[in-house]
Amino acid sequence: MMHDLIGRLFRWAFDNPTLNRMDDQAVLALDSNRIAVSTDSFVIDPLFFPGGDIGELAVYGTVNDVAMCGAKPLYLTAGFIIEEGFSLSDLQTIVVSMRDAAHACGVTIVTGDTKVVNKGKGDKLFINTTGIGIIGHDFVISGSNLQPDDVIILSGSIAEHGIAVLSKREGLTFETSIVSDAAPLHELVQVMIAAGGNGIHAMRDPTRGGVAATLNELASSSHVGIRVIEKAVPVQSAVASACGLLGLDPLHVANEGKLIAAVSPASADRVLAAMRAHPRGANAAIIGSVTAADPGRVQLQTILGSWRILDMPVGEQLPRIC
Amino acid sequence: MMHDLIGRLFRWAFDNPTLNRMDDQAVLALDSNRIAVSTDSFVIDPLFFPGGDIGELAVYGTVNDVAMCGAKPLYLTAGFIIEEGFSLSDLQTIVVSMRDAAHACGVTIVTGDTKVVNKGKGDKLFINTTGIGIIGHDFVISGSNLQPDDVIILSGSIAEHGIAVLSKREGLTFETSIVSDAAPLHELVQVMIAAGGNGIHAMRDPTRGGVAATLNELASSSHVGIRVIEKAVPVQSAVASACGLLGLDPLHVANEGKLIAAVSPASADRVLAAMRAHPRGANAAIIGSVTAADPGRVQLQTILGSWRILDMPVGEQLPRIC
Repeated sequence: MMHDLIGRLFRWAFDNPTLNRMDDQAVLALDSNRIAVSTDSFVIDPLFFPGGDIGELAVYGTVNDVAMCGAKPLYLTAGFIIEEGFSLSDLQTIVVSMRDAAHACGVTIVTGDTKVVNKGKGDKLFINTTGIGIIGHDFVISGSNLQPDDVIILSGSIAEHGIAVLSKREGLTFETSIVSDAAPLHELVQVMIAAGGNGIHAMRDPTRGGVAATLNELASSSHVGIRVIEKAVPVQSAVASACGLLGLDPLHVANEGKLIAAVSPASADRVLAAMRAHPRGANAAIIGSVTAADPGRVQLQTILGSWRILDMPVGEQLPRIC
Repeated sequence: MMHDLIGRLFRWAFDNPTLNRMDDQAVLALDSNRIAVSTDSFVIDPLFFPGGDIGELAVYGTVNDVAMCGAKPLYLTAGFIIEEGFSLSDLQTIVVSMRDAAHACGVTIVTGDTKVVNKGKGDKLFINTTGIGIIGHDFVISGSNLQPDDVIILSGSIAEHGIAVLSKREGLTFETSIVSDAAPLHELVQVMIAAGGNGIHAMRDPTRGGVAATLNELASSSHVGIRVIEKAVPVQSAVASACGLLGLDPLHVANEGKLIAAVSPASADRVLAAMRAHPRGANAAIIGSVTAADPGRVQLQTILGSWRILDMPVGEQLPRIC
């Protein structure tokens, strides 16, 4: 009966002709032969946090991963692993949140799957989403495509998602409320491509491990060095204070609505202006540059002016942040 | 460190140029604009069972769901939710099993994701796979496309997967060992399409809930009746005995390497002959037919000759079977 109820809930919320066919697969006609595919499992704890919930995150997270190569996200699949006894009303809230998030992104949830595990063998709810998008441009945007002298642009202030989730999980209260930045970035990406074209070399959203992890991945994949100016990195003052109290470096804390781009020097001003004209990039800033020297290494000029290595965060500082 | 080890394990096992790019999305060039997409989360307990393991199942299960609309499966994504403390050596065995299964199916695992949850918040390992295939034919194969007078063909003997998993889980031993039928069906599907063309109206693999659940879904989606002859349904004698001992109806027990097809009467003989000539369809049999009467209802002529309603299994008889 539970299964039947859940099935009806999903069909009611995600109602569309492809899903409604209720086959075990979705049949899709695409406008392009070049597609981008991304998958992500969401195990965030707690399920509801300031500024969002797991449903919204499961849509935005995958939409963003698809978008980071410049693709236009179109379709999502959704797989639910539900712990026996999980509140049907919470599930409904989350499913409605997914529906609204998908609608806001212009993506359709075309097929899905539900599994129920015994009590104590899961943790309320895990959601996997896989996204498919089509690629309209003919150049490569990839983490392995950074070039020496590229400019590193960050789309806005950092560490809000991680701090919002942590504060909810640990029952912390700060003077100013900090809300997750969870948001879709595919429109911002399209604006950037329109402005910068093949001057956009790489884009990535700094989620788990934060800006530090993403920059290290990019430096390593592209065999280049990256230099970052700490004071150029936007951090809300409440977030900076919270990080100080918790002993966390904001550069290590997860974001869910920000991106880092590596852009050719010739395109940087145009791309930055286009980003700032878009709501998701209003606080975009140039935070550093790419060097041929020190391949694989990220260096940070601290607020005090000295240089230090900005390492990959050791271990997982904040588990189950997404 | 654990994370790093796991990342290396996946890259070593699934090694291919798309995955190796290590971006958060896979970029794929397709030979067709019409694609099939399917997603499935695998939560099977135990992870290793007679005839297979969760890794193999996660590949075959999704390959089969993609194939059931006649598509040629090409790509898989893989999402892992690992419980803290899960044996790295078991994980390696499973990952190698996925690699071998994917290789056997001619599909590439192009992108993935790993999440680790605290001990007691998962159950060793859950795997989500999402599959993408291309569709080369121009007619519709769908569970909502059954026509009156269609012939119902079953590709082989039933209930082996469910009984194999249950026997392992419950520590049961039978005189004859029963192994899961887990196997990929995409080649059998292509053989069937070559033989039957648009005479193939629907295909579906009877997994959770077995043949009974699948026939009920098909009857309901297509607003037709289905009549099945029980003695025409192939069941291995060891499986029949085990079902008898356990009080299970083999028609309700899960399969992972069988399909049911609804085929026009004119194509049925050709399709059946083609199936029997293929190893995965050697024991294929006509088990029933479609009627305009009694829409949504499946009726079974029992071994004794009387007719009864073959209902959807009530509840989930065998949880975590896939």
